[in-house]
Amino acid sequence: MSPPLRTVVLLTDFGLSDPYVGLMKGVMLRHHPGLTLLDLSHGVPPQQILTGALLLASSWSWLPDDSVFLCVVDPGVGSARHPVVRRAAGRLFVGPDNGLLSLVDPPVDPPVDPPDLWRRIDLSAIPATGAPRSRTFHGRDLFAPVAARLATGDLCFEQIGPILPDPVRLTLPAPIVTPDGLDGEVLYLDHYGNAILSLPGVGTGAVSVGAVSAVPVCLRYTDVPPGAPLALTGSTGRLELSVRDGSAADRFDLHPGSRVRWRP
Amino acid sequence: MSPPLRTVVLLTDFGLSDPYVGLMKGVMLRHHPGLTLLDLSHGVPPQQILTGALLLASSWSWLPDDSVFLCVVDPGVGSARHPVVRRAAGRLFVGPDNGLLSLVDPPVDPPVDPPDLWRRIDLSAIPATGAPRSRTFHGRDLFAPVAARLATGDLCFEQIGPILPDPVRLTLPAPIVTPDGLDGEVLYLDHYGNAILSLPGVGTGAVSVGAVSAVPVCLRYTDVPPGAPLALTGSTGRLELSVRDGSAADRFDLHPGSRVRWRP
Amino acid sequence: MSPPLRTVVLLTDFGLSDPYVGLMKGVMLRHHPGLTLLDLSHGVPPQQILTGALLLASSWSWLPDDSVFLCVVDPGVGSARHPVVRRAAGRLFVGPDNGLLSLVDPPVDPPVDPPDLWRRIDLSAIPATGAPRSRTFHGRDLFAPVAARLATGDLCFEQIGPILPDPVRLTLPAPIVTPDGLDGEVLYLDHYGNAILSLPGVGTGAVSVGAVSAVPVCLRYTDVPPGAPLALTGSTGRLELSVRDGSAADRFDLHPGSRVRWRP
Repeated sequence: MSPPLRTVVLLTDFGLSDPYVGLMKGVMLRHHPGLTLLDLSHGVPPQQILTGALLLASSWSWLPDDSVFLCVVDPGVGSARHPVVRRAAGRLFVGPDNGLLSLVDPPVDPPVDPPDLWRRIDLSAIPATGAPRSRTFHGRDLFAPVAARLATGDLCFEQIGPILPDPVRLTLPAPIVTPDGLDGEVLYLDHYGNAILSLPGVGTGAVSVGAVSAVPVCLRYTDVPPGAPLALTGSTGRLELSVRDGSAADRFDLHPGSRVRWRP
Repeated sequence: MSPPLRTVVLLTDFGLSDPYVGLMKGVMLRHHPGLTLLDLSHGVPPQQILTGALLLASSWSWLPDDSVFLCVVDPGVGSARHPVVRRAAGRLFVGPDNGLLSLVDPPVDPPVDPPDLWRRIDLSAIPATGAPRSRTFHGRDLFAPVAARLATGDLCFEQIGPILPDPVRLTLPAPIVTPDGLDGEVLYLDHYGNAILSLPGVGTGAVSVGAVSAVPVCLRYTDVPPGAPLALTGSTGRLELSVRDGSAADRFDLHPGSRVRWRP
Repeated sequence: MSPPLRTVVLLTDFGLSDPYVGLMKGVMLRHHPGLTLLDLSHGVPPQQILTGALLLASSWSWLPDDSVFLCVVDPGVGSARHPVVRRAAGRLFVGPDNGLLSLVDPPVDPPVDPPDLWRRIDLSAIPATGAPRSRTFHGRDLFAPVAARLATGDLCFEQIGPILPDPVRLTLPAPIVTPDGLDGEVLYLDHYGNAILSLPGVGTGAVSVGAVSAVPVCLRYTDVPPGAPLALTGSTGRLELSVRDGSAADRFDLHPGSRVRWRP
């Protein structure tokens, strides 16, 4: 009896206007027409590995327990950077060894079994996809075929290749403790213009940005009048800077890296 | 024997660049990996409840008969606004009680059985999703879990909570009858720059906008030369203002609310 | 016993902000809730038939062997242009007879059996979809119902209608051989700002654009420093002009049709 199919979750910087996402899905459905494919996001800004790593880290635990994550933000495609599979918290993460998969943070107390482990994909072990492998689109020609085979069970984690002892690891900017409170920065700006900050969620105090006087930390958007700014603990658990029914990005001219300060 | 799964149709103002839609889908697939999820649109302009209500009203009848609609345009998230489920025309509509679900207009002659009814979601009746419920993302933490359970039959409409006798209801601007014809406005601008108007489909006459002289009502785009403006009955049954192979939005600098006039 | 379901692959210029794609999918799921629907792209620029044809031609072979392609870039909707189905390389392609399906180029040596053939859709043979057919949205009212019935086997290719002997055929601009090398143009600009050229993939030489001095042809992005331009054979097999970790479209102010030259 064949094992149950695992869901394949896709995260890329491909956008949705080109056929690139569809081609990866086509390659996987060619391998098995019954696969469930779930788009997490294709809106990672082009080549922004850290942003992709952040979105993956704040999302993975909400997706099905046995998901295979197919993650491609890969400016080094075709170079010597390794293709890898990481096993963490029962999930499998397929992608380039450039830090994209490194911020996934499985629980350590109690430790998860089987343990967190990285393997370098041994290309000679991956069945041919019926065409020469391009040097610019490993999503289609390498990562999607591997993810599909992991999802169906035709390939298991142990067969991927040798253990990779020292994968590339990224770190997010940590809050800086000052005599007055915490200093941080904008990590990500969403579609609404909400700014996800490098600061932990809190229920009190105020946030300032540039010369702008303090924005109150609230519990919900409706704690301030329409059009007024506020900060609150967002759905990722981090502090966010928002404008009710508006865009904090526009109001405060925010960009990833813009400095912010929290004061109690 | 378990009941057949109902399709879950998603309509939000989340856009597709962030992981928000993927997270809602992940939560639903965690509940049941076999669910069919259908994106109606995630392009409702942020916080534009009336636009979302309009798109839902003009779309629902084309989707599967037993669909569960998961609709989230929710600027009041976290406030006292009720989460609700509406049953209409055999479909179930899950979302906030802010009017988003109120323009769905099931046939009344003959009346549909079971009758149109709204229920307020009783949060204590909804099984926990394994994490504290955020105050900013009820799509992930409340509406998606409810929609998934309605789609699988693990929750039925009668178990949702008490009947809501007075849901928030919106109204679309109605055509204004004048001595000369009908006055109306732009309700929605689509991707092509077509303007869907608050006027019923007609086959004759002309439409004017601002100081622009009359645009003829035609039957099809190809009734005018490339680049020429025209009006015609669109796929929603309403009158639309278009430019053949071009954008009426750009040509006439149209916005939602722009005034238009129809003359016989 | 019913035949296996064929995957339906969608390619349109509808974009993803409006409900148009969702409505086509809804119509197909109403016909059969088990259909697999795969988005190839909805980002064809509005009314750009040749671009749609190019994307289809460079993608179809990666999708499942028995796919039904539902292709709608249809500025002539509602006019006398024929709705058609093309059978090529075992796939079925549904769409308007405006050249959109004409660049699919099945292998001829050895010839594919059954042979390449076009049929005009006989509207009287298509079961009603339960609503009058609009004059502006044949994707929803004609092509999706046909594609769904072909995918389920409720309709077979022979039942579509009469053979169309002279479908509209487009041609891509061919490279021009000059005493110095090849002259060509930009065919398509992707999300990253990569320019797909009307030139075959090569491994050597240089590409120039306008007054810009020669850009080297490389094997991979990482052959040049970050921010530097390069040309390379892309995933479609054509030559592409890129900027490492940047946008060639922005750097060189490229548009479809921009002239380029390759020199050995």
